[in-house]
Parts: sequence; C-alpha cells; structure tokens
Amino acid sequence: MSGIRATGTKTLMLFGGRAHPELNAEVADHLGVGLVPSKTHNFANGEVYVRFDESVRGSDAFVIQSHTAPINEWIMEQLIMVDALKRASAKQITVVMPFYGYARQDKKHRGREPISARLVADMFQTAGADRLMAVDLHTAQIQGFFDGPVDHLWALPILADHVAAQHDPANMTIVSPDAGRVRVADVWADRLGTPLAIIHKRRDPNVANKVKVHEVVGDVEGRTCLLVDDMIDTAGTITQAAEALLANGAAGVLVAATHAVLSGPAVDRLKNSGISEVIVTNTLPIPEERRFDKLTVLSIAPLVARAIHEVFEEGSVTSLFNGNA
Amino acid sequence: MSGIRATGTKTLMLFGGRAHPELNAEVADHLGVGLVPSKTHNFANGEVYVRFDESVRGSDAFVIQSHTAPINEWIMEQLIMVDALKRASAKQITVVMPFYGYARQDKKHRGREPISARLVADMFQTAGADRLMAVDLHTAQIQGFFDGPVDHLWALPILADHVAAQHDPANMTIVSPDAGRVRVADVWADRLGTPLAIIHKRRDPNVANKVKVHEVVGDVEGRTCLLVDDMIDTAGTITQAAEALLANGAAGVLVAATHAVLSGPAVDRLKNSGISEVIVTNTLPIPEERRFDKLTVLSIAPLVARAIHEVFEEGSVTSLFNGNA
Amino acid sequence: MSGIRATGTKTLMLFGGRAHPELNAEVADHLGVGLVPSKTHNFANGEVYVRFDESVRGSDAFVIQSHTAPINEWIMEQLIMVDALKRASAKQITVVMPFYGYARQDKKHRGREPISARLVADMFQTAGADRLMAVDLHTAQIQGFFDGPVDHLWALPILADHVAAQHDPANMTIVSPDAGRVRVADVWADRLGTPLAIIHKRRDPNVANKVKVHEVVGDVEGRTCLLVDDMIDTAGTITQAAEALLANGAAGVLVAATHAVLSGPAVDRLKNSGISEVIVTNTLPIPEERRFDKLTVLSIAPLVARAIHEVFEEGSVTSLFNGNA
Amino acid sequence: MSGIRATGTKTLMLFGGRAHPELNAEVADHLGVGLVPSKTHNFANGEVYVRFDESVRGSDAFVIQSHTAPINEWIMEQLIMVDALKRASAKQITVVMPFYGYARQDKKHRGREPISARLVADMFQTAGADRLMAVDLHTAQIQGFFDGPVDHLWALPILADHVAAQHDPANMTIVSPDAGRVRVADVWADRLGTPLAIIHKRRDPNVANKVKVHEVVGDVEGRTCLLVDDMIDTAGTITQAAEALLANGAAGVLVAATHAVLSGPAVDRLKNSGISEVIVTNTLPIPEERRFDKLTVLSIAPLVARAIHEVFEEGSVTSLFNGNA
Amino acid sequence: MSGIRATGTKTLMLFGGRAHPELNAEVADHLGVGLVPSKTHNFANGEVYVRFDESVRGSDAFVIQSHTAPINEWIMEQLIMVDALKRASAKQITVVMPFYGYARQDKKHRGREPISARLVADMFQTAGADRLMAVDLHTAQIQGFFDGPVDHLWALPILADHVAAQHDPANMTIVSPDAGRVRVADVWADRLGTPLAIIHKRRDPNVANKVKVHEVVGDVEGRTCLLVDDMIDTAGTITQAAEALLANGAAGVLVAATHAVLSGPAVDRLKNSGISEVIVTNTLPIPEERRFDKLTVLSIAPLVARAIHEVFEEGSVTSLFNGNA
Amino acid sequence: MSGIRATGTKTLMLFGGRAHPELNAEVADHLGVGLVPSKTHNFANGEVYVRFDESVRGSDAFVIQSHTAPINEWIMEQLIMVDALKRASAKQITVVMPFYGYARQDKKHRGREPISARLVADMFQTAGADRLMAVDLHTAQIQGFFDGPVDHLWALPILADHVAAQHDPANMTIVSPDAGRVRVADVWADRLGTPLAIIHKRRDPNVANKVKVHEVVGDVEGRTCLLVDDMIDTAGTITQAAEALLANGAAGVLVAATHAVLSGPAVDRLKNSGISEVIVTNTLPIPEERRFDKLTVLSIAPLVARAIHEVFEEGSVTSLFNGNA
Repeated sequence: MSGIRATGTKTLMLFGGRAHPELNAEVADHLGVGLVPSKTHNFANGEVYVRFDESVRGSDAFVIQSHTAPINEWIMEQLIMVDALKRASAKQITVVMPFYGYARQDKKHRGREPISARLVADMFQTAGADRLMAVDLHTAQIQGFFDGPVDHLWALPILADHVAAQHDPANMTIVSPDAGRVRVADVWADRLGTPLAIIHKRRDPNVANKVKVHEVVGDVEGRTCLLVDDMIDTAGTITQAAEALLANGAAGVLVAATHAVLSGPAVDRLKNSGISEVIVTNTLPIPEERRFDKLTVLSIAPLVARAIHEVFEEGSVTSLFNGNA
Repeated sequence: MSGIRATGTKTLMLFGGRAHPELNAEVADHLGVGLVPSKTHNFANGEVYVRFDESVRGSDAFVIQSHTAPINEWIMEQLIMVDALKRASAKQITVVMPFYGYARQDKKHRGREPISARLVADMFQTAGADRLMAVDLHTAQIQGFFDGPVDHLWALPILADHVAAQHDPANMTIVSPDAGRVRVADVWADRLGTPLAIIHKRRDPNVANKVKVHEVVGDVEGRTCLLVDDMIDTAGTITQAAEALLANGAAGVLVAATHAVLSGPAVDRLKNSGISEVIVTNTLPIPEERRFDKLTVLSIAPLVARAIHEVFEEGSVTSLFNGNA
Repeated sequence: MSGIRATGTKTLMLFGGRAHPELNAEVADHLGVGLVPSKTHNFANGEVYVRFDESVRGSDAFVIQSHTAPINEWIMEQLIMVDALKRASAKQITVVMPFYGYARQDKKHRGREPISARLVADMFQTAGADRLMAVDLHTAQIQGFFDGPVDHLWALPILADHVAAQHDPANMTIVSPDAGRVRVADVWADRLGTPLAIIHKRRDPNVANKVKVHEVVGDVEGRTCLLVDDMIDTAGTITQAAEALLANGAAGVLVAATHAVLSGPAVDRLKNSGISEVIVTNTLPIPEERRFDKLTVLSIAPLVARAIHEVFEEGSVTSLFNGNA
Repeated sequence: MSGIRATGTKTLMLFGGRAHPELNAEVADHLGVGLVPSKTHNFANGEVYVRFDESVRGSDAFVIQSHTAPINEWIMEQLIMVDALKRASAKQITVVMPFYGYARQDKKHRGREPISARLVADMFQTAGADRLMAVDLHTAQIQGFFDGPVDHLWALPILADHVAAQHDPANMTIVSPDAGRVRVADVWADRLGTPLAIIHKRRDPNVANKVKVHEVVGDVEGRTCLLVDDMIDTAGTITQAAEALLANGAAGVLVAATHAVLSGPAVDRLKNSGISEVIVTNTLPIPEERRFDKLTVLSIAPLVARAIHEVFEEGSVTSLFNGNA
Repeated sequence: MSGIRATGTKTLMLFGGRAHPELNAEVADHLGVGLVPSKTHNFANGEVYVRFDESVRGSDAFVIQSHTAPINEWIMEQLIMVDALKRASAKQITVVMPFYGYARQDKKHRGREPISARLVADMFQTAGADRLMAVDLHTAQIQGFFDGPVDHLWALPILADHVAAQHDPANMTIVSPDAGRVRVADVWADRLGTPLAIIHKRRDPNVANKVKVHEVVGDVEGRTCLLVDDMIDTAGTITQAAEALLANGAAGVLVAATHAVLSGPAVDRLKNSGISEVIVTNTLPIPEERRFDKLTVLSIAPLVARAIHEVFEEGSVTSLFNGNA
Repeated sequence: MSGIRATGTKTLMLFGGRAHPELNAEVADHLGVGLVPSKTHNFANGEVYVRFDESVRGSDAFVIQSHTAPINEWIMEQLIMVDALKRASAKQITVVMPFYGYARQDKKHRGREPISARLVADMFQTAGADRLMAVDLHTAQIQGFFDGPVDHLWALPILADHVAAQHDPANMTIVSPDAGRVRVADVWADRLGTPLAIIHKRRDPNVANKVKVHEVVGDVEGRTCLLVDDMIDTAGTITQAAEALLANGAAGVLVAATHAVLSGPAVDRLKNSGISEVIVTNTLPIPEERRFDKLTVLSIAPLVARAIHEVFEEGSVTSLFNGNA
C-alpha cells in the first residue's frame, strides 16, 4: 500500500480564559500540566484578541472559562478561543464552563422571550466545540441543548461532605427556597437521610407578580435548616427564606450552593441575615472584598481536573459519582 | 422588469395521523376545515405508507398526531407525513403533538442514557418541520430542544375552570405528587389562591432506589386535596400520594392532569383508590374500556384549533393565555 | 510544549438491539468479543429506554439492529441507542442494519409520497451515526442517501455457493420475478454463467393497477429456474412467478433471496407452491413457527463480523468481494 | 401594533445559463416571460462570471441549464448563478436541469467510487437551491439525493404519443437494451399495451467485463421493436441491441430516448445501424452537425414551462401526468 | 381542495438594541414606523434579558444594534434579540449592524489567531438571522462570511458630498493612511477626480514590529490632503499620517471616516493634531464628552432607512448607489 | 470491559488530480511517498470518473489539484475525488489547492454578483473536506470562507530569496501594480527593506470604467523596480505598470508573482515588454510553449511537501514562516 504509516498519539492541552485565573491555575496543578501561554487582550474598542503561543495542531484541547461578570465579555472570549483552536487544527475541543452562563434562561417563561441557554450551546457548537463540561447546570435539561456529549459534574458530594462533617444530619431538615428547586433539595435529603421542607411564595391575587407571604411547607421547628440551591445571585430569595424559617421556629439556618454569583446586594444581605454559614464552591471567582466570615469556599478544581483527566484517558466520568452522572 | 407578478396567497391545510382520529376531527370542526384525505396504511412488514390525495404545494400544513401507544409507530408515521409534505412543496410545516412523546427522557438521569426528547425534536427538524406545537410539555425546557418556534399550549385554564366550578378553593390544598412537579403545583396554587403541599418520597438509605415512606410535607388535614401533574401514566405515584394524603387526614382527594396515558394498571389503581374524581383532557385517546365513572375528560380541541388559527393568521398564541405562553 | 502526550488507542465495542438477539450473539462470537451489556426496556406507554452498563467513551461503536416487525419500534430503539452513544462520547458510531428498513420507499412512485429510505438515513445521521453498514440494499442508490460511508455487503456469494453446490448451473436459468429486479438476476446469471429470464406482469389496460398476465420472457422449458430477489415479503410475487414458470414448462423452481421478511401469508404461500427450495439468510429473525421444510437459512453473521473487523482494523471491505463492493 | 403592513406579492423570474439558449428561449416563450438579462462570461483563465442586470430581490427564481458538454463548465455556471441569486435575496430558487448531469454515477458500482449524483444535489443545496426540477432522471432514486422538493417530469407521454401516432402498437414489442433499464421498458409496455423483451449481455466467464453475447430474451421475430432508454450517449449499447434484434428476426427497430447526449461515435453508429428512427427530445442541445435524417427531435419546452407555471401558481405538477409524478 | 385560503400580507417591524437609541429613533422616524417596545435589561450578574411587548409572528423583522463599547455586551444582546424573534415566529430576520463588530479580525494575521469576523457572521446565522445589513465593512470580503444575503451600504456618497461642498477637489489629494486601505482611497480619488498618495510605514529591520518612519508616497506639497479610512479607533495611525503629511509640505489635512470608534486617546490626539476637520457618521454613538469643535457628524439614518424600505418592498438596494453595491 | 483494544495508527496518503501531474510527482518525491494509483477519466459526455486502486480506509488523505484551465473541470474532479474518499472512509481529508480557483471573486464588486470563492470553500466542505491548504490566497480573508482549518502557505520567502540573491535591494523599489495589492507590496518592502511605490489607475470621469492614466505614486527614477502581485493572468495590468515605471525613469523592471496563470495574450505581452525578468512558481502548470527566456519558474513543491508533513505529524505550519502564517 502507498502511504506513510505512524503510531497515533494524543496530547492534552489546557487553555484558560481571563475570567478566573486562580481556578485555571488550580486545575492545571491538579492535572500536572501547564496552561498554554497566549496573547489575550482587548483592543481599545473592547474587541477581544487571542493568540496561542504554541502549536495546538492535533491536540485534545480543554478551554476553561468561568462565566462571571462581565459575563458577555467572558463568553465571547471563550467563543473566540474555540474559533482560534478550530482554525489551528486542534483535534478535539472541550469547553469547560464551571458555571454555565444564561442557564436560567432555559425556557420561555412568557411569550417572545429567548432561550438563551440553548443559544449559548449553539454558539459554542458553531465556534467549534465538540464537547461541553459544566458543574451543576441550573436544570439538567440543558444537557439536551448541546448536540454532542456534555459532561455534567456535581458539586453535591463536596458540599454535602463538608456539611455532614460539621453538623448532625439527625437534627437537620433540607429546605428548598422555592417551588422550582425542590428536586435538588430532594437529592440532598436522600443523601443525608433528612426530612424535607419548602418555602412557598404565595402571591397576592390582587397584585400581579407580588409575593405576599413566604410560607413554610413542612416541619422546621427546633431543627437546623439547610437551604440548598444551585446558585446564590442577589441572595434575596435565600435570605427571605431564612427569615421565614427562623420565624417558624428553626433552630438555625445554613446555606449550601454551588455557584457563588453574589451580585449586587448579596453580600450585605447574607452578612445581615440570621444564616450562620454559607457554603459555596469556587466555580466563580469571589474577590476578597466579597468574602465574609460566614462564607466557606470549597474548591471545585480537583473535581474538574479529574473529569478532564477521565475524558482525555477515555475513562468514565460517570464513575466519579458512583454511577450517577 | 422581467417576470410575472402575482398576489401572494396562503392556504391552511390540516393533516391527521391515525393515532387519534376523534381529536383530528374535532380540531378540524373547530377550524371549519376538512382534513386532507390520504392513503395511509402499513405494509405487511409494518412499514408505514402515506400519500396525500390533494396537492399540498405552497400550503401552510398542520400535521396532528397524538403520541399514544404504540408510540414509536405513531411518531414514525408523523415523521413520514412531514417528509412527504416537504417533498411535495408544502411551504411551511407545523407539527402538532398534543402529547409530546419521550418528553420524560429530557435529560440524562444517569450516565450513558439518551436524551430522547431532544432526538424527537431533531428528527422532526430533519424530516422538514418548521414549527412544533404541543400541550403541557413535561418540562418547559423541551421548547429549547427545537431550533425554531415552539407553540406551547397550556391546558391549565381548562382544567382549573372545571375544578373551580365544582369545588370551593377556600377549602382546597394543591398537592404535588413528588419533588419534581412542585413548579406545576405552584402555578395551580397561584391561580386558585390555595396553599401548597408536596409528597416527599423518602428512600430507604439501606436499599437503593427503594422508597420507604410517602411523607406529606405541608398541612392537609380536613382539606380537599387536588393532586396535579402533567400526565398520569401507570398511576402508581398518584394513587400512593392519594393514600398518603387520606392517611394524613385529608377530607378528599381529586386529581387533575393534562395527559391521560393510563398505561397498564392505571385504570384499576384509580378505580380502587380513594380519589373521588380524575380530571384529564383528550390529548391522548382514551378508549371506551379505559373510561370509568370517576373520570372526567375535557376536550383540548378548541384550544388546539384556536392556536392553529392564530399561527395561520399570524396572530398571537401568547394572547390565548392572557399574556403567558 | 505544554501538554500531556499519550499513545492513541482504539476500542471496538459491539452493541445489539432487541430485534434479533441470535444474530447479535453470532456476530459477537465471530468477532470474539462480548456484547456490551445494557438496560433496555419499554416503559408502560411503549417508550424505549436504553442505558449501557459500561463506559463507552472513545470507543469505535458498532450498533446492530435487524429491522424486522414491529419495524418502527426497532428503528426507534436503534436511533435511541445511537443518541446515547453520541452523548456518552463514543468516538465513532457505525450503524449495522442487516436489513435496511423502508428500503423499498426509495423514491416517489407517485406524487406526494415520502422517500422514507432517505428519511431513515437522515435520522441516523441526526442521531449521531458516522457510518452505515447494510446487506443487499433494495437498490444500490440508497448508499447515496447517507452523507458518509456506507459499507454495502453482498449475500450473493453465500447464497450462490450454496446453490452451486447442490444444482448443476448448466441446466439452470436465472429468473427475475419482475421488471424491477432484473439487474440482480443479471449479476446471478453472470456469476453462475446461466441464461436469464424475467416475469413480465402485463397489466389490464381497462383496470388500473390490475395485473392480467404473468408473462414469461425468455426460455424456461425443461430448465431448473432459480428465482432471485433481494427479499421475500408476502411471497405473492414470487409464488405467482413460480406458477407461471411451471405453467411454461420449467423442470423445477428454486428461490434465493437475502432477506426473509416472510410477512402475513408468505409461509403458507411458499409451502403450498411448486417451489422446491427457498434459500435465505438470517438478516431477519425467522421464528420457529415460520420455518418449514423447504426453507434453508444460511448465516450472514460471518460476513457481518468480517466487515466489522475490517472497518475497525481499517482494512478493505471491498476486498471481501474480490474487488467489488 | 407597531409596523408597516403590506400585501404580499410574488414574482416569477426566469434565468438561463449559456449551455442551451434555444431551450431557454422556448421555455420563456411558453411562459410568456422574458429571460432576465445578465452579464455572463468566462475570464481568461476560464472562471465563470455572472451578474444579473435587474433586481431579483424577493423573486421566485427558476434557473435553467442543460448539463451538456463541457458539462463541468455548465454545472459550475449554474451553481454560480444560484449563489448570486441567493446573495441578491431571491426568495425561492428552483434549479431546472432538463438533463441531470452525473445521474449515472448514482451509486458505487465498485469500492472507492464517488456518488457524484448525490454530490451534484448537495452542491446545489449548498449554493442555495430550494427545489430541483428535472426530466427523466436516470433512476428515480435520485429524487432522494436532494433534501427538498424535486419535481420530476416525464417525457414518456410526449415520446409515446409520437410513436403511437405512427406505428401500430399491436405489432410492437418494447425492448430494454440491458438488464438495468427494464423498469422503463415495463412502463412503456404498460402504456402501449405491448409485450416486452430484453437484451441480456452475457459476459465471458474467462475475461473480466468482456461481453460475449447480446442475447435476446423474449420473442421478437417479425415484430417492430422499440428500444427505449433514458439517454443515448455513445450509442454503443443501443446499436448492438438493434443488431441483436435484427439478427433474431425483428421486422424493424425504432429507438426512443429522452436525452440525446450523442457523444463521440454516437451519430455515426446510429446512422450506420439498422435502426429506422431515433426519437429524442431537446433536453440537451443537438447541434446541426449531429442531426441526421432518421433523428426526430421533440420539444420538451412545453412540459418544462407548464411545470414552472404550476410551481409558481402552487398548482399540482403531479396532475400533469394524470396523477403520476 | 380542502383548506382555508387567504391573501398573504407582510409586516415590517423595527427592533432596536440599547447601544445607540438615538440612531434607532432616527431610522424609525425616516421609515415612519415606531420601534417595537420591549423589556430589555441586565440581570444582576450581567446576563441580558429581552422580551418584546407585541406579537411578532409573521413579521419582517429588522434588528438594529450598533457594535460600540462594551461591544461584547451589545453583540450578545443583538444575538439574544434574534433568538427571541426566531422562537416567536418572525418570518424573516434582518440584522442591521451599522458598524460590524470584530470586522478587523477578518483573517489570521499570524498563526493560531481566530477569524472573529466570520464567527460573528456564523453566530448571527445560528441565532436565526436571514440577512445582514451593514455600512462600510472593513473589507468587502466579509460579505462572504455570511451564508445569505448581505446588504452592504456605503457612506462614501454622504461623506464625499459634504467634502465636495466645502473644499475644491482641484487642490486636493486623497491619502491612504496605510498600505491596507489604499483601495478605499482609490474609490474616493475616482469619485472626486483627485490624485492619490499613501503613507508607508517603514519598519525598522532591526526591531520587530517597530515602525521607523511614516514615509509619504506621492506628491502632497502645497495640497489639501484628505485622509480617508473606514474607521477611526485610537486615531494613532491617522494623526501620525497627518503629521507626516504636514511635515512633507501639505497645505492642510482633513479626515473622513465612516465609523467614529474614537477609543481611548483618540479625541485628545485629534484635537491636538494639525487636522482641520474630522468628518464621520453616526454609525456609532458619540457621547457629548467625545465631541469637539473640529468634528462633523453626518447622519447615516436616512441611508439605513431607505435600505430597510427597499428590502421590505423588494426593491433594489443596489440602486441606492447607482448600480454599485 | 467488553471490547477489543488496539493501538491507534495513522497513514498519510497522497492523491493527485490530473491538472498538474508534474507538481503532484514532485510533492510526492519530497514526501518520500507514492501517489495512490487511481482510475480517473472522462466519460464521453465529459463527466469525470474516479476510482482509487487501494483501500483508503482510515487514511489521512491529501488531495492535490491545481486550479488551472479548464478550471471548472479540475475543480469538479477534485470535488469528486473528495466525495469518493469520504465514502471510502478516509479519516481526514485535506484539500491542497496550490492555486485557489475563483479567489478573485471574493466579494461582490457590484450588486447581484456571486461570491464564488466562498462557494468553492462550501462545495469542498459539502464534498467532505476537513481542511484546506493553499498558497498565497488572493486575499487572506478567504481563509474565513472555510469553516475549518486553512493552512495558508507563502511563496514570498522563495521568491524574495531568489530576487535578493541576484539584485541589490539597496537600489530597489517595490511597486504595487494597483491600489488593491499594496498590502502585498508592503510585506515585500518590509522584508527587503526597500521603499514602496504604487501605480494608480486614474479613471476618466467622463467614461465609466475607463482608465485614463497609469500614475506612478512614489519615487522610481533611476531605481530597479520590482512589481509584485499574487498572480499574473493576462499580464495587462503588469505590463502597463511596467511601461509607466519606465516612462517615469525607472532603471529597470522585474516582476515577481506566485501564480503564473498566463492566460491569452500574457506571454506575448510579457515578452514584448520592457520587463527584464518574470519570476513565478509552479503552483500552476506552465506548458513548454508558454515558457520564454525572461521567465524564471521556482518550485513550490518543497514548501507544499513540508506543510503536508507538518500537518500529518501534527507539527506547526506556522513555524515554516518563522512564526507568521
């Protein structure tokens, strides 16, 4: 036969956007690999420029970016990185989004809305992504927005182990802060073997979209309540929920959430609330000025690094969760 | 200028699969249009054959099929109808699925599962569908599985008006039969101005996937409980929930659900349960032998017909729901 | 250079649908590999559920399904298997269809018909298939319906060797049962070095689609006639052809066909006909109750296994046929 | 509502490539419309340039090109015309190919061949075609190569009416010149109510691809034989078939074929053969020097024009053939 | 025939992003149509939310956004608007980008760079855009980045008429500020009938990317020099060019450019330069604090409005430029 | 785990079209690999037929074709080769176009023109190309027409080294023959450290498209002028430029261009001009009768071979140009 034959090889290369350099570095450390150096900057009018300093031809490229504010900036930067990798002949491109931006716009709540979470998936595919990796999607259905493999990682074991090490589950009740997050609370209750309660926002029938009462559904008197959610954004819902729980006789309130968005009034609200501990991960950067005494930040880097390693080695990401992924 | 100029026209044509001819006919009646006659049959080895008896060139085609059992048969038939319409130059094809098959497989519950609900959306797009129309999707995120417009209709006003006409909401509690359906219960509670409760399935920590207790979270004693869900399949969850409610002192239990799948033991379970009324719509056919005294079937045909009419006339489907769609 | 370098590997994994487990097992045996275990079942309303029990990440996946009745069920199951493999990061997915369903609907025979054979190809591509493998497509043009490689296998050598071992070609005439299958008969005649005849269905000019006479074109008197076709469905055409041949003085009639669809009245018709032997392969399952004395079933498994092996080893499938494929 | 409302209009515009200007003009005449003037020429290195002289925005564009030699030139020109129309905002583009180039490469006859007929369909789709229109495709399966509507026109009524007007079908036998074209002969036999015969090329078992004998299958002695095919290219097959028929006692031989490719030695072969009349259409240009006494050329223009008119008016193309298309 | 027939209508609807509301309003005024009201805001973490207040079903939607800083924000907003329109059944979506963001990254200047201008085109197509409209693309090749019609408008007539009204072309030389923009200068020179000069940046052969000298190529002594470019970003190139011209004896220097990006030091540089007038359009917003005495801003709104009108009425955009577009 | 595991390998295979067999052979020699033998010919009506003689399954295929006249023939042949490779399971297909046909139609110069250079890119993608490789694209933006990697090679080092070896750059001026090619001239001037001049075609304001004067912009008196361009087609522009330079006192004129299209009158014009040397490469075949004394042809084969080698070995093509590609 004509032709030159050679053994196939593969190379893992790790690329980091500018949104959350600490996490990039931590993941690289856990993998034992350096981040590929690049020239990345903004032009005077704000356009993002990217150029990689090493050949990426034939690589298994993993591109990490945390979708923190200014979120559109960082999403666009990651898209442009993917485009550059595709055009430079990377063999396979995995987009790693510890926090998946626009995940809350995963459906039309009302007519004439976008479904931005689908748009984000499609844009990454258009740019050249072969696979997505994300931690705790707002809803698991978002996996179906991408036409290809999505490795969906769970922070729950990390968060729950921390909680269980410090608090007795026997006196704990898991609480969902609203009707839409009960399934997450249910998984927590299962894991810790606790009862469940939910906060029901009763709306005022006379005023549209006006919540009248935060009603506690379930028994919380004298119990340590663990409010669980995928993210804390402005912390309005979560602090109102905590208030309602304490008003209904809860012995104490903890909060566990994967994504610490902590926008606008969030830090003040949490500090001034009756919540005794707020446990989050570092899927998003938390600058020094937004950290406070009651805040515990656990690292997501070991999980992300292990998942990247499994993908590269063609092992099982599912096995990271004892068969659940 | 060279060329022949003419006024543009558009023609609504209605096509019905063989799964639920009564609903097809009802929708046609409400629209004041005949169903396009066709030759549709199965070959000896089960392959579906379709041929339309009239020219469909340039038409605004609406293709109704109810995804009832044998569900793969009817999905394939609808796909083949769409292919035939595309190849016969229909201008625009709207796939009407009163019940969207495979909607429950809308995410990977565990590793190495399909996301069949996305696959269904993609297959209809591949066949030639320009738009989907469906009633009460299992989760609203399924809208995002289709790369085009999805008109999502709600049976809730029909069901809730029926309930409110016969029962006093003042003594009613809306109950979600499990943790995953609380959002739907919340919408009901909002509309009827009632409190909310949920059934929490506590699992046995010693036996995987074994539910130990159906715990009622919320106050139901002495109250009329309305269990709400998008569908009733085998009725296992719903009848166990009803039992738990009665055991916790509920004054009575009603059930309202859009889709009456009513598979296997469903009818017997419902008949033999303490539920006093089961209210559903006819998005799926309910043969005579599966009807029973406590069952109330409301017609979805007027809603579907109005939505088709709005689509054709380029009006607003959102307006059918007072601004919510 | 940054990055982790490793040697590339590849893994053949074999997946079988539920339509024809005997064939799956036989192919696995020939390959010397186990079928990947999976959880596959139908939900109460008929929806198919699939989950693979082992990691498939990075695999060269081959998914076998025989498109037998209930054909829509099995096609959908295979599509869902492909979707699950794609989302679980299989590297390459080959869909093996020993019998390609809907192959007869490979064109519009009349206006406003579908081209379902193209739809089937497109749906597999949409689901995630990279390559198709099939045995004796109804028409070879179906290869062009898929936008990618199609490995087209031929059962003719298997069937013809069996015939030649038992009958003297010198006294044989190959007969095409109708005008549309003459090309296949021609290939047979070439291989065995025999003359050719065809059955011409003359239609009644006064009655649409009414066949008046099965006219034998060619000389068959005193000769052993071998009727050849790609499939036997209801066996109407083939048994009428046999009758016509015997009425025209044929010394005997044999039948050879790759696909034993054997729908409805097929078995009775064949049993009661003057045909002395019916030679088929097991591309489709033939349950015990449809087997009969005159039926010879040859196994297609060795051919399919060799072709899978060649694809995996990047050898030549063409070479399986002495340069013709 | 905001916005400006206007009545929709549509405009048929006809565009002709340079391959067969006489046919373009004839079709335009039948439609009563002028061809859109354009600047079309080749640059010095052979690249094709096209520019339309009138605005085509919003038009229903029909682009005619006959795929005659130099065939790659004319296909590329038509592709470039389609690209220009797409980029100039034509609303809908129908590619009219009286003869579909590369139709004979509709499958892989052997391994490692292209399927060029599919490639042609895909290239037109890529360029921007919404619909194809063609006359007598080499095989009807080619319709399935395009992912959209294909209007497939039949010259048979035109050819058959001419034959029937001059020859008594009672003494006629339709003959297929080889095993692959029997289906076409069958349709002719049906229409004219005649018997059928075929020419069987027996190959020499000792020499690959060497035809030994042109065997006549069927009874032709004393009969007028009408050889039918979709095209006459080099006329080798057809003249050898004619010889065989005359050698077997045929009273005379006529030939009818839609596409007069008439390459290389075709004209000489036909002239010098025993064929008494060759009836074709003008789907391809036939220059004066390739015309000869026995050649009858019927115009396809009325049929193409009527089909374009039906497409534009959203009537039925099927109806042009009494329900068969 | 079955079906309901109606006359087709079309509706122009105009949508404006938040980047440049003055331009939106001006274009709306010229068209005599209101902008469709919408709810558009950013969530606390920066995600953009859009909802239109009126039904857009069936509309010819035109979505204007000026890609000014923060540019990624506004591009993403426009993408999300398009997604919302697509999902709300707009019939046709035209993306109007008076300034096309990332246009300068229209090629790989060096290895491993993105081609962001192509990515932008692809993302709009993915979101649902059918057509692009832009003013003075950085290079005309960007039209080819979009797989559909691009209406490319030219500000040159607006700018040139202003220049010609105030300065005698007889004493004017058009100057290209660098080697890459000579084609634009050439078009200006053609229109005004003037000579041409260019500024050649000679690089220091000993220091990479270091410009040594701005060499004036062509004769500028005693002449009024008009520096022309598509955009003024930081104004570094243009002010250095002006200096070089004056140093070479130019009588005066004017600047004309379509897009007033005016980033960072641009305003100071221009103010402090020897340039006597800077003529731009309002394709980008120029806030009060960036305006200065020598700056003349001409409105692009009439041109954009006329082009939208022509697209809607299916007239010719080319005709806006006397046959050049 | 189930499955058969093996080490991955890869095989470079080289395929050559019929346009420029000398270049194919030279590239193969430099790579140390044979060209894969194939059956390639034209059918009587001009259709191209291709079949490869060896299995190509799993190969890294490189397909070279020079887009010389008859250009549409050779483009189509290359497309068909790609289709055949795709369908025969080549793993990766790189289309090597030393000269990219239709590159000059890279934008709409006027309304209602095609963008054929984009169409060419899309057609190769449709046929199955994964990557393009080309030498000196007419404009670098063409890289963005392909949705995947484009390896863009530069002949400049080859040409410039030849020039520098024979002429003293100190007395040289680089000249762009028209306004559109100044950027290329700029790169040359940078490399050789010379001044720059351009030829400005002043048009007659009274006659459309009529060039009145070839004005030399810049100082050329007494200097050796090197006219540079990407291609020489009819040589009209280049010889008029040379005349203008000599008329303005140039000491001599050389020409360097990558692509020797040399159409129509080119050879005579160059021979009869005052140009002393014309330096080109063999990206296009130059038949003996078009060669002349002043013509120097440098081979592009070593560059193409090295680039193919780097692609196969997953090295850096950028590095071939010292970091610029």
